Amino acid sequence: MSLAEDQAKRARAAGNQLRKAQAATKSAAIRAMGARMKSRLEDILEANAADLDQARSERLSEAKLDRLRLDEKRIDELAKSLDAVAAQPDPVGKVVDERKAGNAVLLKGGHEAARTNQIIASCLQGAVAQEGLPSDAIQLVEGGHEAVDQLLTLPQYIDLVIPRGGESLIRSVAEKSRVPVIKHYKGNCHVYVDEAADPIVARTVVVNAKAQRPATCNAAEKLLIHEKAAEKLLPQIAERLVKAGVKLRGDDASRRLVKEIKAAAESDWSEEYLDLIMAVKVVKDLDEAIRHINQYGSAHTDAIITTNAETAKRFLNEVDSSSVMWNCSTRLADGGQYGLGAEIGISTERLHARGPMGAEELTCVKWVITGEGQLRT
Amino acid sequence: MSLAEDQAKRARAAGNQLRKAQAATKSAAIRAMGARMKSRLEDILEANAADLDQARSERLSEAKLDRLRLDEKRIDELAKSLDAVAAQPDPVGKVVDERKAGNAVLLKGGHEAARTNQIIASCLQGAVAQEGLPSDAIQLVEGGHEAVDQLLTLPQYIDLVIPRGGESLIRSVAEKSRVPVIKHYKGNCHVYVDEAADPIVARTVVVNAKAQRPATCNAAEKLLIHEKAAEKLLPQIAERLVKAGVKLRGDDASRRLVKEIKAAAESDWSEEYLDLIMAVKVVKDLDEAIRHINQYGSAHTDAIITTNAETAKRFLNEVDSSSVMWNCSTRLADGGQYGLGAEIGISTERLHARGPMGAEELTCVKWVITGEGQLRT
Repeated sequence: MSLAEDQAKRARAAGNQLRKAQAATKSAAIRAMGARMKSRLEDILEANAADLDQARSERLSEAKLDRLRLDEKRIDELAKSLDAVAAQPDPVGKVVDERKAGNAVLLKGGHEAARTNQIIASCLQGAVAQEGLPSDAIQLVEGGHEAVDQLLTLPQYIDLVIPRGGESLIRSVAEKSRVPVIKHYKGNCHVYVDEAADPIVARTVVVNAKAQRPATCNAAEKLLIHEKAAEKLLPQIAERLVKAGVKLRGDDASRRLVKEIKAAAESDWSEEYLDLIMAVKVVKDLDEAIRHINQYGSAHTDAIITTNAETAKRFLNEVDSSSVMWNCSTRLADGGQYGLGAEIGISTERLHARGPMGAEELTCVKWVITGEGQLRT
Repeated sequence: MSLAEDQAKRARAAGNQLRKAQAATKSAAIRAMGARMKSRLEDILEANAADLDQARSERLSEAKLDRLRLDEKRIDELAKSLDAVAAQPDPVGKVVDERKAGNAVLLKGGHEAARTNQIIASCLQGAVAQEGLPSDAIQLVEGGHEAVDQLLTLPQYIDLVIPRGGESLIRSVAEKSRVPVIKHYKGNCHVYVDEAADPIVARTVVVNAKAQRPATCNAAEKLLIHEKAAEKLLPQIAERLVKAGVKLRGDDASRRLVKEIKAAAESDWSEEYLDLIMAVKVVKDLDEAIRHINQYGSAHTDAIITTNAETAKRFLNEVDSSSVMWNCSTRLADGGQYGLGAEIGISTERLHARGPMGAEELTCVKWVITGEGQLRT
């Protein structure tokens, strides 16, 4: 038996044990994970610094370095997310109680975070073992891509794969996998600034959606603006974007209004930059904005800025994305922000979960039927 | 563009129109489907008789012929199921209303029911068109297996595949498909007769579970019986099974008690017969029964017959199947019987739906977020 198959079998066995575990024990283990991470803060920061050094020497973009970087505040946030998951009431199903997700997990991180992941995983395993639960419930995948490829062929042990990363990684996993995959290929998120937009809401939301953390999938990549609002609002929005370090590309109409905008190519409209880049398009009306988003978007998160409730309602109904937003930042599309406790993944699929996934989205139902001899007639 | 791709594109366009349709219009169309089938009863029975003639000449088993056969009562039941779906309230989601499933569908039937399916599909399309909905919402797949193979490569138009049929068909679809598949490979359902079983419940449930409609996936294929109950109960259960036309196979212990039982092979324990065949095994205790079911079963539906509530509770918790039952027939595992209105499929997967699927299981959620300029900090 290969190492990968052995890991998968041990994960399945651990999952069977977790199924019988008390909710209180699982909550205690989850809280202990956060506590252990906080108590090993310095070890984690040291490992993370080493990962960052190597990433810099490999010339990763600043946005990607930011995504890799941990500091005390982010560790605190992680611990708080874990506490929030531990404090969630058991989700109640329609026919029977559903228990808090009790699955085992095999984790595979990017090589650029290898040291950081090793220490964090040891915190998590220690917390699980401390509460008397099987430590095989949390394993780092040993071995490289070959091990992952092999795990993808073992549906008898593995129920679900959640690839997180770039589009090429996700496509490659989805094509090889015989295990169901929850995925979003990319986050090509739009903000549409309507004719009736409030100027302050428009510029603060656009800048936050683009620049607050540009390497995340819910960062905005495209700005659409109504032609009647463009002359007044686009220059002030563009000025703040440029000040935040954003490089702009756009169509001819937008370039006539703002000289910093370089010409966009057709491929820009479907691209996910994951960086401080944004493409701008002036649209004739709401219909053109909706058509553009449904055609080029990734069904992840799209927002409208408008004071007109009727216009907003049409946008929210007709844009076919997993999250649609009115007058707020696409960066809010997140399991933690939505009150799911913590986010395990975001799905743009139409099966199982759509949008951010929390613990409840990792449960499944079981029909329990009791009778006194009932037959089918 | 191939015919298959054209069908898929038209289905996607019809689905987009259905998304905007009123619930009342959809309900009216669903009711009209049943009415049209009843009004064309004679045409349907005539087409079905021709399909049955051909199937007989191709020597299909009696159980499979039974599955193909339509009569006035079954058409009435189909119409009633449609009425039940039409009468369902719109399922209410957690954040927003969910609408009754408004997807378009591409249907591909077995060649043995070609004539029957053609007439029924024309009833359904007529009902949809009568209510002003796009008739492309219901299409029979034109072309043979090649057309199906091509549809499976079009995730841009098709969200979900539900193959229904034998294990080899389902495996072949799952292996080729780039579209998510909801499936159960087989229904190897068990009835476990416990030491504390009520004799009348035991024998009526076992006979109903096996013989009421043996070609269905929720028919019982295996009988497990506690060694302390076997001597008294197995002969009377076996007598009734034999009287119902069931051929029995079993382990040595069962063969010592009932002479009609032929020797079972190891492969029998995982086989789905879909016919009047049942394999019998005497087990030492509840633990052996649970282990046997979790090892050889198909996670579809498994039942325990016992008067001991503690024993039942352990069985219902520890048997890891999508439906678990206490003192009733496995044949009750069905979307209609569970109050889902009608059954679109049964899933033994752990993603999306588990067990019978109704209209609600064909909906997905959309997160709608409204704000007054909220940002991510």
